[in-house]
Amino acid sequence: MSTDPLVVFTPSGKRGRVPKGTPVLSAARQLGVDLDSVCGGRGICSKCQIAPAFGAFSKHGLTSTPEALSEWNATEQRYHDKRGLKPGRRLGCQATVQGDVVIDVPPESQVHKQVVRKAATARDIVMDPATRLYFIEVAQPDMHEPTGDFERLARALAAQWDITGVTAAPDLLARLQPALRKGDWQVTVALHHDHTGAPPRVIEVWPGLHEGGIYGLAIDLGSTTIAAHLADLVDGQVLASAGVMNPQIRFGEDLMSRVSYAMMNPGGEQEMCRVVREAIDTLIGELAGEAGIAPELIVEAVIVCNPVMHHLLLGIDPVELGQAPFALATSDSISMPFAALDMRVPNPRARLYILPCIAGHVGADAAAVALSEEPHKSDDLVLVVDVGTNAEIQLGDKSRVLACSSPTGPAFEGAQISAGQRAAPGVIERVEIDPATREPRFRVIGVEPWSDEDAFAEAVAATGITGICGSGIIEAVAEMRMSGVVDASGLIGSAAQVGTDRCIAEGRTHAYVIHDARDAGGPLVAVTQGDIRAIQLAKSALYAGARLLMDEMGVDHVDRVVLAGAFGAHISPKHAMVLGMIPDVALDKVTSAGNAAGTGARIALSNVAARAEIEQVVHRITKVETAIEPRFQEHFVAANAIPHATEPFTQLRSIVPLPDVSYNTRGEEGGTGRRRRRRG
Amino acid sequence: MSTDPLVVFTPSGKRGRVPKGTPVLSAARQLGVDLDSVCGGRGICSKCQIAPAFGAFSKHGLTSTPEALSEWNATEQRYHDKRGLKPGRRLGCQATVQGDVVIDVPPESQVHKQVVRKAATARDIVMDPATRLYFIEVAQPDMHEPTGDFERLARALAAQWDITGVTAAPDLLARLQPALRKGDWQVTVALHHDHTGAPPRVIEVWPGLHEGGIYGLAIDLGSTTIAAHLADLVDGQVLASAGVMNPQIRFGEDLMSRVSYAMMNPGGEQEMCRVVREAIDTLIGELAGEAGIAPELIVEAVIVCNPVMHHLLLGIDPVELGQAPFALATSDSISMPFAALDMRVPNPRARLYILPCIAGHVGADAAAVALSEEPHKSDDLVLVVDVGTNAEIQLGDKSRVLACSSPTGPAFEGAQISAGQRAAPGVIERVEIDPATREPRFRVIGVEPWSDEDAFAEAVAATGITGICGSGIIEAVAEMRMSGVVDASGLIGSAAQVGTDRCIAEGRTHAYVIHDARDAGGPLVAVTQGDIRAIQLAKSALYAGARLLMDEMGVDHVDRVVLAGAFGAHISPKHAMVLGMIPDVALDKVTSAGNAAGTGARIALSNVAARAEIEQVVHRITKVETAIEPRFQEHFVAANAIPHATEPFTQLRSIVPLPDVSYNTRGEEGGTGRRRRRRG
Repeated sequence: MSTDPLVVFTPSGKRGRVPKGTPVLSAARQLGVDLDSVCGGRGICSKCQIAPAFGAFSKHGLTSTPEALSEWNATEQRYHDKRGLKPGRRLGCQATVQGDVVIDVPPESQVHKQVVRKAATARDIVMDPATRLYFIEVAQPDMHEPTGDFERLARALAAQWDITGVTAAPDLLARLQPALRKGDWQVTVALHHDHTGAPPRVIEVWPGLHEGGIYGLAIDLGSTTIAAHLADLVDGQVLASAGVMNPQIRFGEDLMSRVSYAMMNPGGEQEMCRVVREAIDTLIGELAGEAGIAPELIVEAVIVCNPVMHHLLLGIDPVELGQAPFALATSDSISMPFAALDMRVPNPRARLYILPCIAGHVGADAAAVALSEEPHKSDDLVLVVDVGTNAEIQLGDKSRVLACSSPTGPAFEGAQISAGQRAAPGVIERVEIDPATREPRFRVIGVEPWSDEDAFAEAVAATGITGICGSGIIEAVAEMRMSGVVDASGLIGSAAQVGTDRCIAEGRTHAYVIHDARDAGGPLVAVTQGDIRAIQLAKSALYAGARLLMDEMGVDHVDRVVLAGAFGAHISPKHAMVLGMIPDVALDKVTSAGNAAGTGARIALSNVAARAEIEQVVHRITKVETAIEPRFQEHFVAANAIPHATEPFTQLRSIVPLPDVSYNTRGEEGGTGRRRRRRG
Repeated sequence: MSTDPLVVFTPSGKRGRVPKGTPVLSAARQLGVDLDSVCGGRGICSKCQIAPAFGAFSKHGLTSTPEALSEWNATEQRYHDKRGLKPGRRLGCQATVQGDVVIDVPPESQVHKQVVRKAATARDIVMDPATRLYFIEVAQPDMHEPTGDFERLARALAAQWDITGVTAAPDLLARLQPALRKGDWQVTVALHHDHTGAPPRVIEVWPGLHEGGIYGLAIDLGSTTIAAHLADLVDGQVLASAGVMNPQIRFGEDLMSRVSYAMMNPGGEQEMCRVVREAIDTLIGELAGEAGIAPELIVEAVIVCNPVMHHLLLGIDPVELGQAPFALATSDSISMPFAALDMRVPNPRARLYILPCIAGHVGADAAAVALSEEPHKSDDLVLVVDVGTNAEIQLGDKSRVLACSSPTGPAFEGAQISAGQRAAPGVIERVEIDPATREPRFRVIGVEPWSDEDAFAEAVAATGITGICGSGIIEAVAEMRMSGVVDASGLIGSAAQVGTDRCIAEGRTHAYVIHDARDAGGPLVAVTQGDIRAIQLAKSALYAGARLLMDEMGVDHVDRVVLAGAFGAHISPKHAMVLGMIPDVALDKVTSAGNAAGTGARIALSNVAARAEIEQVVHRITKVETAIEPRFQEHFVAANAIPHATEPFTQLRSIVPLPDVSYNTRGEEGGTGRRRRRRG
């Protein structure tokens, strides 16, 4: 029987006997316990902090005393004097095991930290990024055994971290010699080592122990908006988030008009490439400024986007994506130098990873949604709808996943809407209409009270009310339908028909006024007949795509629906169902995933295994092409009504009684008779 | 016993039985015969041309008739009509084996062609470059099985050429789709696949069969001159060669003054980096123009250079190379995108390979000389001297090789010489002085007759006589010594002392006039006392380096000497020995290797295995550091005389009687007495 001391690590429960005098860090490594260290056990980085527990532990079957660890030593004291160690904490590389002991590894000392996500249904992200920091001691040059400084650095990484075959770009080599000498032959390197089989790359080098952290970007490059998160690559926390309009909008609002622009204008794709790269570069600068970090500490980025954005970002003419068979230039993931996109802001050696595309119309953004929402692991049949200028729709469970994309246009994002704006302070995001009075109340981004509450006027004074965003227009149209302002065909009734002077004439049609500040020189925020038509087209396309996948899957219902949206969009499940955006399902089975594509980008940024996983998953997703499928057109036409005629909407009707009204453009109320006749 | 036909390939002698009907190309592959094909057997590229031999072959033991191969087919006829096949030639992919046959593979049909080098002692280069052409047929896109065009191209390379895991840069992807469609799904790709373990990279893509070739550069980046060859990467032939002055000269003539410039001027290394990159870029443009090829067909380059040039090329501050312990930022070979050096002329996806450095003072140029001259494979003890602004010296045999570098300065290259010029038309390259009359005769680059021949005046009219190059000055000084114009200490005698008015006064010293056209407004080409001193310093450094290696090796003689020089330099062994540049050895044991560093670069460009080889060899070369070795100084001082005092020069004296004269600066002839006294 061994007389070596028994060590039990919590929370992992891993245990084993180690020779007396073994440093706790070494014991952790031997027993496969996740205990961090950047300096490799030199008492410098403090990443290996542990919390020993003393007393009797019936569960672990041992009694432990303070003598179970070696005494507090000079290195710990020096570190404590300089930076302070929390009470009860020891440095795992300094404290040695002297007797049976239970040792807790606090979360911040774990290499593979979990980043807890807010949504209860979402999995947590385990930190295992491609780029990590390593502290090393490099042998000094010897004239009689000449080797390059980089070759000795590579040897140090092999000897001290078991990392072999590292490479470096010439501009890193140019920084190496001063750093080694300034750090007295101790340096910290940022090493990029991903899943592609490429050799590990030294991205950056700092003299001594680098304590400024390293950072990464998760970028969701949409047709209308570009959203990005700046995350700490050590603990995964998001330090700053920002979004800008995609400047390519001036070349065409939707994808096909940008493809057309490239076809009609030689070099047009290069023009669109340049502006989107510049926009991303500017966005990165803003994020670094907001987070208060040096931009060169940004060493990695992950980008997700649809195929047309993908090609335009890479400088590839998207013309083939505009015509059958919609051939991508490349569909696999891409790992490349970020600087190859002419980026100026981040580190010139920063790396970029672009998720794989699924098909010519279903891009890396859909792959990111799959990574985030995992339909391929679902026990029940889930419909995942990513609402953007193009909607990417996935339907499946762990046996099979189908995907398609549907050209919804930018209406859901507030574009092509008369008073539409991107989600920002001062913009209406929630709308309710009283079914009795047909009076609206609304909420504005950045303002807590609703518009009919006392504190509203004061609270909104700072921003004013400037327009309505995507989620606001969806709610407005749905509420208009529920309150009888709009009929099933989508027509807005006149003031006389509806019985409220909120309905105003606009040419030969009507508009419904949500907010009118024209007397005070402010804007009119109204929903016009054109807005209703834009929303109808968008929701019909979305619904038709979902139905096509259901046909293909051979089902007429789904178990649950996940609504994912662009940055800042918060679509209300109830209103989405009233509009008929999604198939009928119990309301509590509709969840909102926020910006799932952006979340997928964050996952890929934080965890290199997730990259390998999604590259496998995309090959198992079956693509359905809407553009050449006659049934898509049929579903699209049938889905025009609000609610459309093909669905019983049993679930919805139980919570939302929809009025049976219909209007005509001459202002006469048609009553319920026409609808009954059509059903007959 | 098999009744399959027997096929014998010549010149390899490889033989074997193959099923009747096997195409000759397939038979060659099965039997391991080196038979080229770019189109993979589609009858398009004609690279697999073979010459069947019919008759009885006692050596091969078989009788062959024209029926032994299938009949001339339509594909061969089409190719013949279009481009013509030589009589007796067949296409190896079309002709099938029908009976016993002897088939000759002509040299131009071999993949691994030999490039025959002029020097008899030098090994031939076997073509096996990193970048090669492949013709492939790519599957068309299928909307129902969506894959990217690049992924289908990768599959074609795997299926048709057994090459897996290829990658491509975004700018190649941007070219891919138009090329595939223009070539009707047949394309030729240039694929770079070196010895580093990196995945094969698609460098270029052309529609259909690309017949324009691909090209590479072998660049010898010297302190004073930059020399480059443009070579065909298929057959290894050099199409153009050119050289320019290194524009860094304005920052300092020798390496240490450039290191000083970088130390004294912040950013100075970036300035020197920029000008040398620009010079190389310009040189490449000139070479492409001279060869008449499109610059974008240049897909690879190999650069050799000394360590300071190496660092300045890569943008690395060379300051550490100016002080002990002379630490290189990196010593290993470098494989990188050529464009990372801001090159504009070649293909933006062209690759660059830089040979490894041996030590802080012995660079990639010395490695290239080792690759070319192979001292590590020599049976006898060879001294290889690469004469440049810094001389790299290697001494060894197959058991052991030592190397050092010696700061000769640029005198041997014609710099720091009063009438010195780079080797070019109009420049004096050979000099003879009559020992009786002390009258010179000389030869000018680009002019066949010597200066005392009748045809000279007419022949030289085109260029005129502009100066003297490195080999010219070496011959001039040696001839001056042999004819008694200069004494053993290096002093030029006065007109009275020497007995010729070719010796003219110049300040307090004298100069020897080789050519004087001042009356006609032309130049004076004379060797001044300062020139002699510069040559003395240079040759003393060179000799001292060689002696230091001999001390280290524990020998007092070498078996043979190889003189290698910068581009265009042709050092005469006899004159080198008279000068005392090299240790005493039988004159027939001194050979000139021309620009061996440039040749080494060409070998590395042509043969990827040679890169792996030299990377191993450099680790086995023992570096001797001259800068800190007191014996180097002792040898240097002792080697000042012409010939210097430490060598018996037995071999030399048998062919060149050296006069025992000495001069002093006051113009008195010292006679032989002083010399005898000193010896006594």
